[in-house]
Amino acid sequence: MRNPDTTAYGSGGALAGDVLGAYLRTQAVAFLRALRLHTEAAGSAPAGGAAAADAAEAARGLRGAARRIAGSLTTFRAVTDSAWADGLRGELAWLSSVLADEHTSAALPARLLDALHRLSGSPDRPGGAAGGGLAAGPLRAAALLERQLAPARARAHAAALQAMGSSRFHAVVDAVAVLASEVPLDPVAARGPVADVLVPLAAVPRARLEAAVAALPRPAQAPPYDAGQDGSWHEVRHLLRIHRYAREALGEDVARPAEAGGALARQGDAAEAAAASAAAARTPRIAPATAYALGVLHADQRHEAEAARRAFHRIWHPAPTPA
Amino acid sequence: MRNPDTTAYGSGGALAGDVLGAYLRTQAVAFLRALRLHTEAAGSAPAGGAAAADAAEAARGLRGAARRIAGSLTTFRAVTDSAWADGLRGELAWLSSVLADEHTSAALPARLLDALHRLSGSPDRPGGAAGGGLAAGPLRAAALLERQLAPARARAHAAALQAMGSSRFHAVVDAVAVLASEVPLDPVAARGPVADVLVPLAAVPRARLEAAVAALPRPAQAPPYDAGQDGSWHEVRHLLRIHRYAREALGEDVARPAEAGGALARQGDAAEAAAASAAAARTPRIAPATAYALGVLHADQRHEAEAARRAFHRIWHPAPTPA
Repeated sequence: MRNPDTTAYGSGGALAGDVLGAYLRTQAVAFLRALRLHTEAAGSAPAGGAAAADAAEAARGLRGAARRIAGSLTTFRAVTDSAWADGLRGELAWLSSVLADEHTSAALPARLLDALHRLSGSPDRPGGAAGGGLAAGPLRAAALLERQLAPARARAHAAALQAMGSSRFHAVVDAVAVLASEVPLDPVAARGPVADVLVPLAAVPRARLEAAVAALPRPAQAPPYDAGQDGSWHEVRHLLRIHRYAREALGEDVARPAEAGGALARQGDAAEAAAASAAAARTPRIAPATAYALGVLHADQRHEAEAARRAFHRIWHPAPTPA
Repeated sequence: MRNPDTTAYGSGGALAGDVLGAYLRTQAVAFLRALRLHTEAAGSAPAGGAAAADAAEAARGLRGAARRIAGSLTTFRAVTDSAWADGLRGELAWLSSVLADEHTSAALPARLLDALHRLSGSPDRPGGAAGGGLAAGPLRAAALLERQLAPARARAHAAALQAMGSSRFHAVVDAVAVLASEVPLDPVAARGPVADVLVPLAAVPRARLEAAVAALPRPAQAPPYDAGQDGSWHEVRHLLRIHRYAREALGEDVARPAEAGGALARQGDAAEAAAASAAAARTPRIAPATAYALGVLHADQRHEAEAARRAFHRIWHPAPTPA
């Protein structure tokens, strides 16, 4: 990050505890509101498409607030009551991982079936008018993927429902409800100025992110797509979130991290979809038309992942603007 | 073309016949030199890879010179002895089409086998270490494509050999040899200034090209890839050649048409390769791993065609440069 943005509180006289406390309280309120919306959507009858969309939107809000609270407790641990912060952070990590599994296991088949639907609709594609013997491929591939991915989706949904009915979850909600009114802080650190306390702490995840990004192969050197790098990209996505939430807590502009995060999300979704179509193609005794459609699907998703990787680098290393 | 480049001869006092005659003589000499190299390469023993590469390079030179002469005789027909020009143009069109068939029928399988070779070598790809049951796919797809495309390549090679041994070909060579020393021109038009005679004639293929490019869908509106548009792209490639040769004859800068032509050549090659892999996947009773590799290959080539289409638009409609 060659152009460090200005730190909103960096030069003012605000106290670290006030700024962090306000951010955590805001996120706690957002968590509780999302939980209420989720409960309403889940309880509404009949449970149609609109209710499911509301529930998914509420779950997204819940995940986002849980990640922000957990991220802030990590980055700014020294400003909080550390024992309390470590406990809550672990519980929020558990919750957001359960919710993320539920989201991913539903989003992956939706993405694949949508791409196959477009394949079968295009005049040029295997299922199109000119497809000949390949016409049934996308439909058969969709049926195969649906069959293979439905159990994982059902399991993740059941796990999320079970988690949200557990006493462990209720304890998390109670802790967040307390947080909404009163944030347990370290009495000394909380009274320090933002610039002396929070800003140096926020530089830590930023440095870790910079190192992880620097370790990514740049598009010019990189082979077209290498699934072996999916882990590095996943790590960058995780570190970018932590960095972004630290900036948010400091009241800084997060437009660029948010845009870069969008590219990383597209990268991750496409890479996962490419892997799932390759895995499905290893199913014994599938028809050649099915395998062909899965090959097209795999390559299309791989290209989307590549495009998202290039987009991330463009956002993160912008070309120097002419003076 | 919003920035018409300067016309090298446009403002000078050169005569149309002198300028066109010099260009045609140069191309006739290039034709005869390429023919000599081709004969030498074909006659060299043993006929190894180097000789085959020399023969291919000489055939490329022959095609280029034949196209340039035929293109100039089309664009500047009014400045030539029209009956002679029409006859030679037709014979050169026959010759360059035979040579182009030979080139394409060899380049297509080479491109596909090369792409499959890269597929089988990549850790991420169907034939890679993690490929499991898909590992044999690229090799089997390569064998299938080789089997399907070899007859057409052999036929086109035989047709080119036969053509170049025919009396029809010898008559073309005789006519080009005459052209190398004396260009049959229209006595009145040839004495006009370049700006009044050649420049308006060169504007005709330029206008046709502009219209054909304007009729292409722009990337933003276009669906990702539509094989139904291959014909329009082929037409633009043909018109761009005619335009480029007219500019060459006028001594104008051809860097941009040459670069745009390179993008169109990549587009055409990739589109043809995508179609060939889809066609091969329609072969009855192929193994799923073969079909999967052909699907990946098809989509990869389709993406290369898309990228080349975008590159052409970027070259042809450059972003306005900041003042």
